[in-house]
Amino acid sequence: MISFDTIREAHDRIRPYIHRTAVLTNHTINDRAGADLFFKCENFQKIGAFKARGGLNAVLQVAENKEGAAITTHSSGNHAQAVAFAARQVGLPAYIVMPRTAPQVKKEAVRGYGAEIIECEPTLDAREAGVREVMERTGAVLVHPFDDDRVIAGQATATKELLEDFGLEKTFDTILAPVGGGGLLSGTSLATHFMSPTTRVIAGEPEGAADAVLSFRSGRVEKAPYINTIADGLMTTLSERTLGIIREHVTEILTVSDAEIIAAMRLVWERMKIVIEPSCAVPLAAVLKHKDQFAGQKIGIILTGGNVDLGKLPF
Amino acid sequence: MISFDTIREAHDRIRPYIHRTAVLTNHTINDRAGADLFFKCENFQKIGAFKARGGLNAVLQVAENKEGAAITTHSSGNHAQAVAFAARQVGLPAYIVMPRTAPQVKKEAVRGYGAEIIECEPTLDAREAGVREVMERTGAVLVHPFDDDRVIAGQATATKELLEDFGLEKTFDTILAPVGGGGLLSGTSLATHFMSPTTRVIAGEPEGAADAVLSFRSGRVEKAPYINTIADGLMTTLSERTLGIIREHVTEILTVSDAEIIAAMRLVWERMKIVIEPSCAVPLAAVLKHKDQFAGQKIGIILTGGNVDLGKLPF
Repeated sequence: MISFDTIREAHDRIRPYIHRTAVLTNHTINDRAGADLFFKCENFQKIGAFKARGGLNAVLQVAENKEGAAITTHSSGNHAQAVAFAARQVGLPAYIVMPRTAPQVKKEAVRGYGAEIIECEPTLDAREAGVREVMERTGAVLVHPFDDDRVIAGQATATKELLEDFGLEKTFDTILAPVGGGGLLSGTSLATHFMSPTTRVIAGEPEGAADAVLSFRSGRVEKAPYINTIADGLMTTLSERTLGIIREHVTEILTVSDAEIIAAMRLVWERMKIVIEPSCAVPLAAVLKHKDQFAGQKIGIILTGGNVDLGKLPF
Repeated sequence: MISFDTIREAHDRIRPYIHRTAVLTNHTINDRAGADLFFKCENFQKIGAFKARGGLNAVLQVAENKEGAAITTHSSGNHAQAVAFAARQVGLPAYIVMPRTAPQVKKEAVRGYGAEIIECEPTLDAREAGVREVMERTGAVLVHPFDDDRVIAGQATATKELLEDFGLEKTFDTILAPVGGGGLLSGTSLATHFMSPTTRVIAGEPEGAADAVLSFRSGRVEKAPYINTIADGLMTTLSERTLGIIREHVTEILTVSDAEIIAAMRLVWERMKIVIEPSCAVPLAAVLKHKDQFAGQKIGIILTGGNVDLGKLPF
C-alpha cells in the first residue's frame, strides 16, 4: 500500500538526483483549449522523462538494501534509460532488455549511461523472457517499468511537485496524465488523492493501444484490440496493481487518434518551443478533443518526456 | 549614440510586453564544449524570438510620438512577426514586406497578428522597393530590422537580462550572438560594454552568408561572396551603423558551416529539449568548433529564436 508518507519518502530519496522541473503555461494553447493549462515539464527531467523518478526510487532502495549485484528491466525506451541512469548513480551494472524497434536515440542514451542492451522481439513475452534470462545469468534484480510500488511512488513525485508549485491553497479542477502500463497514472492519481482530493484525475490513451480504457470498464486486465500508434511509450497493458489504483482514483480514460496526438505535439513544439515525444502529447490531445468538458477549468498536465527520434518525426 | 540609459529606458518601455526569458544550462553540452555555457532562451520570447524586443522599442516610440499612421518593414521572418506583434499592441496597421521564400510558419504568424503581407523576390533590392511602395501608398513609418538605434537598444535588453540574472558580481569570459544585419550583435556588444566591460563579445556567422567577417576586417560594408545557408535569419549584410558598433565592441567573428549549424541545433533539441531555429545554433556551433579557444570559460550565449518550419527540418 502506497501512503502519502511513501511518496514523501520517495521524494526525499530521489531529490538529490533529479531536477525540480518547470511548470510552463502558454497563452495561445490556453486560447485554443478554452482553459488554463499548467504543463509540468518532465521532458526537462534527467534522462528526458519522468521515468527517472521511479527508476531512481527503486534502484536506490535495491542498492541500500543490498538486494542484488545488478539491475535489469525491459522497456521500450524511457524506463530503460531511467534504470541505466539510476544504476550508474549507485555503481551497479544494468542489463536492459529492449525491443529491437525502440527508437535509436533511446538505445544510444542507454548505452551512454554504461548499461548493456539485450535486444528482443517487440512483444511482452519476448521482453519478459529476456529479463528472466538475464536474472538467471547475472543475479540481477528486476525493476519493473510500472508493476512495482517503488516505481509508482517515484512517479507520484512529479504530481507532488506540480501541486506544490501551483500552490496548495489553490485547486486544479483536473490533472491529466497519459496511460501505458499505468505507473505514472497510478502515481499521479495517488498524489492527487492525498494532496488535492477534490481534483479529478483523467487519463489520455491512444486509440491504437486502447487497453486501459477496456480494463477500466471491465475491472479485469484487458488487452488492446490492436496495437498501432505513434505513441511508442504507451503500448503496454496495465497490471492488476495499476488497474486497482486507477479504478479507485481515476475518473475517466479518454482515447485519442494518432492524428490528434501529432497535432497536439506539433502545437506544443511550435508554440511552447519545447521538444516533447508523441506519448507526451496524448493528454493535451484529449483536452483539445473534448473542449466542452474542460472549458474554463484549471488543468494540470504531466508532460512526460522529450526523447523523440529527430530522424523520424511525423511532421 | 546609444548609452546605457538608452538601453535602460528601452527595457522599461518594453518590459510590460515581453517575457523575462529563462537562462538554461545543460551538463551534456558543457561536457561536450569543455566550458560552462549559459543559454539566454529568447526562443521562449514573445513571437518566438528576441526580435520582439527591438520591434516593440521602436514601434512603441512611433506610437508615442505620433510619427505615422501605420508601420512597415521588410524581413525574412522574425522581425516581421515582431513588428506585426508590436503594431497590434499599439493599435496601428502593419504592412510587412516578406520574401516569398520565407518559412510558411513565419508568414502564418505574421498574418495571425493581423498584419498585411506584401510578398517580394528574395533580394534586398526587392525588399526595399516593396517598403518604399508601402510608405508612399499608406504613409507608414519604416521600422528597419537592424539599421535603427531604437531596434538595437531593444535587442540589447536580452543581454542586460542575461548579465543581471547571471549575477553582476560574476563575470562571463565571453558572450556570443549570431550576426546577420548586426542589430542583435550591436545591442549585445553595447550592453556588455556598459555592464561587463571585461567580457569579450564574439559573433558566429554562417559560412554561407559570410559578409560580416569581411566587413569586420576591411572596415567597409562588404557583401558575402555567396549566399547559401540554412540559417535563414542571417542572410542580410551589415549597415554602416551596425558595422561601426561591431568594430568598436566585438572581438572576433567566427564562421561555421551548415553541417556544424545543424549538428549544434540537433544537440540542443536532443539534450535541452527545446526548439531552436538554425540561425540560433550558430554561436554554439562556433564554440564547439573552437573548443581550445573557449576551454574552461564561462560563456553566455543568446539563443535567438525558435521559429522553425517543422515541415522542413534538416534532420
